[in-house]
Amino acid sequence: MKIVQIGHAGHCGYAYPGIKSHAIEFTGLSAGSAGLETEGIIEFAESLKKRGFEPKIYSDWKEMLDTEKPDIAIVDPWYNDHGKISLYALEHGINVFCDKPAATDFETLEKIQRCDKAIFAAMFDARTNPAFKAAKKAIKEGRIGKVRMMDSRKSYKLGKRPAFYSSRETYCGILPWVAIHAIDWMKWLSGEHYTDLTGAAISRLDNGDNGDMDITSAAQFLMTNDVIATVTADMYRPMSAPTHGDDRVRVVGTKGVVEVTDGKATLITDPDGVIELENEPAGDIFEDFLARLSGETNHLTKESCIESTFWALKADERARERFEK
Amino acid sequence: MKIVQIGHAGHCGYAYPGIKSHAIEFTGLSAGSAGLETEGIIEFAESLKKRGFEPKIYSDWKEMLDTEKPDIAIVDPWYNDHGKISLYALEHGINVFCDKPAATDFETLEKIQRCDKAIFAAMFDARTNPAFKAAKKAIKEGRIGKVRMMDSRKSYKLGKRPAFYSSRETYCGILPWVAIHAIDWMKWLSGEHYTDLTGAAISRLDNGDNGDMDITSAAQFLMTNDVIATVTADMYRPMSAPTHGDDRVRVVGTKGVVEVTDGKATLITDPDGVIELENEPAGDIFEDFLARLSGETNHLTKESCIESTFWALKADERARERFEK
Repeated sequence: MKIVQIGHAGHCGYAYPGIKSHAIEFTGLSAGSAGLETEGIIEFAESLKKRGFEPKIYSDWKEMLDTEKPDIAIVDPWYNDHGKISLYALEHGINVFCDKPAATDFETLEKIQRCDKAIFAAMFDARTNPAFKAAKKAIKEGRIGKVRMMDSRKSYKLGKRPAFYSSRETYCGILPWVAIHAIDWMKWLSGEHYTDLTGAAISRLDNGDNGDMDITSAAQFLMTNDVIATVTADMYRPMSAPTHGDDRVRVVGTKGVVEVTDGKATLITDPDGVIELENEPAGDIFEDFLARLSGETNHLTKESCIESTFWALKADERARERFEK
Repeated sequence: MKIVQIGHAGHCGYAYPGIKSHAIEFTGLSAGSAGLETEGIIEFAESLKKRGFEPKIYSDWKEMLDTEKPDIAIVDPWYNDHGKISLYALEHGINVFCDKPAATDFETLEKIQRCDKAIFAAMFDARTNPAFKAAKKAIKEGRIGKVRMMDSRKSYKLGKRPAFYSSRETYCGILPWVAIHAIDWMKWLSGEHYTDLTGAAISRLDNGDNGDMDITSAAQFLMTNDVIATVTADMYRPMSAPTHGDDRVRVVGTKGVVEVTDGKATLITDPDGVIELENEPAGDIFEDFLARLSGETNHLTKESCIESTFWALKADERARERFEK
């Protein structure tokens, strides 16, 4: 099998252990729309050498896909280019392992949905997290009864964000980039599906001089079976906090509550009270993707990635209304 | 000073230590609109005896107010009667210590707002909580910089709810009864004011056979200075959980985050990382109310109680739209 990579703006690294262990040929690396220099592709290629990868460098991603005709493309350009590049690859029969969101406009998202020439997955990595997997297991075993409400938190350290975060032309916003993880994990944890957006908000004030970048956000949804799902996402986590991201979820059921905080899952049920659940083994989303290519599993389906992206875009669209009045 | 009480559906008990310590005469007890028997007033009067109070029992609250002409009325009938009774008392120059919400319709709320014949306060007790006070102190001292986002949780044990919770005719719903606490404390903690409701949802499924009672809810607001404020409230806390209510708030600022969980306040700032704050001494909202009567303080003003009630009612109105289509 042959793999290529377009851009390195996000989480391309998820693929590297699997590329190694499956001896996949890593034959090409290209820039997205912004170009080799702006995206720091040459320097990035140097860092890949240390991992034992020496892909040929292309300045044009289309030329690379047409020339290399790889089995898989890792799609990790500036986020607003995810959709366009994924769609081109899929239409040329190339399987796509793309960072989230799957696209940043509804039209491209729908085209990706419809294209069945190749396999598509977006990088929803919480599904591999040991504590989230422990929560999922408890829910699946019926320990909290029926799921009724969920609330999630994503809080990141701001650090030094690349310049492309400063403009809506190149950055998709905090709801499709950060909150989308929670939108996906709440669907995955509960087995429910989104039916309505009931609220969304973003703010860009005091964003560390990052132009139009959102720094706080909230979104609220209804799901099948009358489940309420909410998320807040922000980039104000202090640098000295113990972890980069403060990922939390609470799932409230008819018979109990399961909650993930600080990498641990806790369950409250009657009559046992509060117990800490044992973490599950970590998963690997790239391995799941490879398994899909060989027809082995049905994890992280395109439909599921598209649904999470769709509702993140809906939330962003609603939240942006106030800036566009 | 003379005090009377109407109903005992909620948190009338907040007043009793102050009635004792200030030697206020507790001269009358009446039912609200539902009547002596339905409201269990006779049995309740027995329980008051054990506290050393022997008020005269009235079946009609108006007659009691007109006869006793008290300085203060504790207004604690079924929640949908709060507004009507408070307004009558205020218009007759009687100071009102009322459970929240201040009213359950906008018209009565506005009349209470306009009436300046007596002092009004609603029972927003989180303002007296040692951990919430510690968080407030940290915010006031500037330790988290400017407040930018807040998220809150209210989760109660369902237990056995009185029958009046089953109907919208008598119960105001979870947003004005439960989430309102968080709506108030986020305003109090931040010093900001609500400017817009950006989302609200309630659900009544699987509510333990309590008729039309809401069991889950979420609301989302914008505040002055572009602060986003969210709350979820539910009644699914398992009976074996360590506390009746799981009250939480996280306040995210430009320089740090303060969070109240399990009765403790935690601060994260640079460069110190995570530290636990020392709890402040517990307050007493009835004492604050008495201090307002003697002109000593400006705590828990009518305007503030009205604002919290107004936005809780707005959220409820929005959330109910889906049931009324």
